[in-house]
Amino acid sequence: MAANSALRRKSPWAGREARTREREVKREAVLRTAVTLFNERGFHATSIDDVATALNITKPTIYHYFANKDEILFECVRRGIDSIQQAGLAAEKKGGSAMERLCAYMREYAIVVTTDFGICVTRTADHELSAAARKRFRASKREIDRAISRVVEEGMIDGSIATGDPRLMTFTLTGSLNWIAQWFDPKGALSPEDVADGCVATLVQGLAPRR
Amino acid sequence: MAANSALRRKSPWAGREARTREREVKREAVLRTAVTLFNERGFHATSIDDVATALNITKPTIYHYFANKDEILFECVRRGIDSIQQAGLAAEKKGGSAMERLCAYMREYAIVVTTDFGICVTRTADHELSAAARKRFRASKREIDRAISRVVEEGMIDGSIATGDPRLMTFTLTGSLNWIAQWFDPKGALSPEDVADGCVATLVQGLAPRR
Repeated sequence: MAANSALRRKSPWAGREARTREREVKREAVLRTAVTLFNERGFHATSIDDVATALNITKPTIYHYFANKDEILFECVRRGIDSIQQAGLAAEKKGGSAMERLCAYMREYAIVVTTDFGICVTRTADHELSAAARKRFRASKREIDRAISRVVEEGMIDGSIATGDPRLMTFTLTGSLNWIAQWFDPKGALSPEDVADGCVATLVQGLAPRR
Repeated sequence: MAANSALRRKSPWAGREARTREREVKREAVLRTAVTLFNERGFHATSIDDVATALNITKPTIYHYFANKDEILFECVRRGIDSIQQAGLAAEKKGGSAMERLCAYMREYAIVVTTDFGICVTRTADHELSAAARKRFRASKREIDRAISRVVEEGMIDGSIATGDPRLMTFTLTGSLNWIAQWFDPKGALSPEDVADGCVATLVQGLAPRR
C-alpha cells in the first residue's frame, strides 16, 4: 500500500480522484462562462466558439464536457431552478407560520435571481430549449409555482396571509421576484440582500400605507 | 370637379385615399402576424418567410412594408410601449390621489400586457433589437419606470402610498405586471380584467392580511 502510494506520487499523471476533480472544475468553468455570455448577448447570439474563445480553449475541448449548446443551456437553467427549489426546502424546514415560510422563501428566491444561473432561468424562453429540455424546464417551473401556491393557501388557512386567488397571488409575487433579473445591477448601490428585503417588504405590506 | 370624380369612379385603380387605407390595413396585417409568431416561437426562430407564408404572400411583398425583420420587431415593441404610455397619460388625466392614479395606470398596464404587442414588449430582450432600436427601446422603458416612480413618490407625499424606496417599489410592481405576459392564458378562466384587478389588489393590499 505504502509502496504503491509512493509510486503514484512520482507519476506525472494525476490520480483518478484528482482527475475527476479537475474535470469538474473545468466543466464548471465552461458553464459559468457560457451563462455570462447567454445573459449578456442571448442564447442565439452566443456560439460554442464564443465560449471557447473566452476560456482560451478550442471548440472540441468544450465538446469534451457537453454534447452541444442546448445541453449547456439546459444545465445552466437547471442550476438556477435547483437553487430556487433548495430555497423553498430550506424555508419549509425553518417552520413557522405560512407567511414566515413564504417570506423566507421569497427572500432566498430573490437572491438566487441576482445570480447568473438565476438570471438565466428568468431570461430563457421555453422555445429556446430543445423539446425534451423544454418539457423538464416547464415542469420544474410549474412545480415551483405550485409549491408557492400551496404555502399561500396554507397562509389563508392559518390566517397569516390575506385571502384571495392563491394562483393569481403566486404569479403576482413570483413576477416581482423574477423581474429582479431584468433590472438588478451588481455594480449598483443595492446589494442582492437589500433588493430581496425591499421587494419582499413591498409584496407583504402592499403599496397602501398600513394604519 | 364632378366630372373628374365621375371619371375616377370608373377607374379600376383605387383612389389615393383608398390606396393609403389599403396599404395601412396590409401593413397592420404583417405586424399582427409577425408579433404572434415572435411571441410563439421567438424572434430568432421566426423568418420573414414564415410571416409571408402565414399571410399567403411572398417575401418581397413584406419588404414593400418593412425594410427588414428588425424594423418589424421594433414596430411591434413600439406599439406595446405606446399603449403602456397612453395608459399612464389616461390615468394622470383622471386625477385623484397618487394611489388612485397609480391603480388606474397599473390596471391598464396589466391589460396591455395581455395583448400581443404588450407581450412582445416584455419578452423582447434588448439585445434582440438593432443598436439604434435598442437605444430607443431602453429609453422608452426607462421613461415608463420614471413616470411610475414619480407617481409613487407623489403618493408618499400625499400619504396615499406607503413610504419606501420609490425605485425599488416601482420595479416590484412593474415586475408583477410584466410577468402577466409570461403566464396569461387567453383561453383560461380569467379575463384580462380579472387578472388586472387581482394583481393590482395584491400589490396594493399586500400579502399580509389587513386588520
